[in-house]
Amino acid sequence: MMNINKDTLLCMSLAARPGNFGTRFHNYLYEKLDLNYIYKAFTTGDLAAAIGGVRALGIRGCAVSMPFKEDCIPYLDELDRSARAIESVNTIVNTDGRLKAYNTDYIAIERLLAKHQVGPDTVFALRGSGGMAKAVAGALHNAGFRQGMIIARNEKTGRRLADLYGYRWQADETGLDAALLINVTPVGMAGGPGAEELSFSERCIERADRVFDVVALPAETPLIQYARLHDKAVITGAEVIAIQALEQFVLYTGVRPDDDLVERAAAHARG
Amino acid sequence: MMNINKDTLLCMSLAARPGNFGTRFHNYLYEKLDLNYIYKAFTTGDLAAAIGGVRALGIRGCAVSMPFKEDCIPYLDELDRSARAIESVNTIVNTDGRLKAYNTDYIAIERLLAKHQVGPDTVFALRGSGGMAKAVAGALHNAGFRQGMIIARNEKTGRRLADLYGYRWQADETGLDAALLINVTPVGMAGGPGAEELSFSERCIERADRVFDVVALPAETPLIQYARLHDKAVITGAEVIAIQALEQFVLYTGVRPDDDLVERAAAHARG
Repeated sequence: MMNINKDTLLCMSLAARPGNFGTRFHNYLYEKLDLNYIYKAFTTGDLAAAIGGVRALGIRGCAVSMPFKEDCIPYLDELDRSARAIESVNTIVNTDGRLKAYNTDYIAIERLLAKHQVGPDTVFALRGSGGMAKAVAGALHNAGFRQGMIIARNEKTGRRLADLYGYRWQADETGLDAALLINVTPVGMAGGPGAEELSFSERCIERADRVFDVVALPAETPLIQYARLHDKAVITGAEVIAIQALEQFVLYTGVRPDDDLVERAAAHARG
Repeated sequence: MMNINKDTLLCMSLAARPGNFGTRFHNYLYEKLDLNYIYKAFTTGDLAAAIGGVRALGIRGCAVSMPFKEDCIPYLDELDRSARAIESVNTIVNTDGRLKAYNTDYIAIERLLAKHQVGPDTVFALRGSGGMAKAVAGALHNAGFRQGMIIARNEKTGRRLADLYGYRWQADETGLDAALLINVTPVGMAGGPGAEELSFSERCIERADRVFDVVALPAETPLIQYARLHDKAVITGAEVIAIQALEQFVLYTGVRPDDDLVERAAAHARG
């Protein structure tokens, strides 16, 4: 902190309930790479004024979390392809007062589907219907996945998400037979009410080829553990959160750290 | 920086040309006192949105420098006595979205007049007519000083300041005979065009009892050096800047560091 000076750039996040991941991830990399930046999490009761402040104060970057990902759009100047694709923003970059928005969750999902060579003919089932579910479903759709099922107890949000991308909706797993299972609910998240639970049934997991959990804390959720036990391919939330945070970092600083350093930053950030 | 977390509070400054003193002073004390705060300087081209951002982001404190000290007033909720006295703000404290404004320059001048036991019957000459000159003249007036002269080459701002507090105005030193000389111009400031110059003539200094220079960098301006050489009592800008920054610190954190620590923080900040 004693190294902050008048040229230090601030990056930040806006969330209803700020966490520590972004703060720890970005500040770790700033320090290791000797970049004159600091990162701090904020919340707000006045989104318009908060984003006006980002612009007026020359705050370099702003991560956007629930419930602001769609509501922030009217206050921005330009949407990158990634944000336009799903009309949802998780990253704002301020260049001389011009605010350009991205969705690095979307970018992370795109990249992970490619990295793990998940082909678009794969039949998937996605559980969830919130903002992150939209990023995942949008990335699947735009990657050419046509056979998919949105599973969500909330019929309104579930049907809306399914209709948006031409998928089917079901309230539960009845009759489900999918090669790729994707959890985009908080089930399995440490400290949550469903921390010990599987987000898909054992039967479904056993019939699948691959399991993808976006829950990052812990990376080894009950779902991922069960899938590993049955020799399924897995994609973890730790990969998602590291890539999305890395892409934010690159957008804010113009610097792309190597994989090893990113891994150490993510491990530090998970705490 | 690696200790920043979601609970860290941000304090900041707004100035046309941010300096490093506040950043270094506050961050030094946060670290020494183990307070979960960070401090960063900003500039802005949109004062209303910047202050809206302070409020909306829950930024705990905001120092205000030229040229924003009067223009910011419409955006604030309450003026403390110190800001009301001179209708000029250099400190904003944000408590749950309510912005209360102070002027710790005014407080510092008040305190230094008392500390150095400068009585209100003293005849003074104040050189300058900017925002800080207003704080000094206002503090002198409110402390009961009635015999004073404002010296300013700019007749408009000089007369306005003199008239505001019932002092006389002169463009230059002609016929000046004052016991207390106060410099509130940049003359003597390191790196400035008048860095090597005296802000009052040798004759005036020799006839005075006491010299007060608000220039803080360096504290030992040519004026102060010449005054010391002639065994005059002095008050330096280093005292002003340390007290005004200390009072901001107390307002933001509720913690009052001891004198020794304040001195070390100020020395670090000047350094």
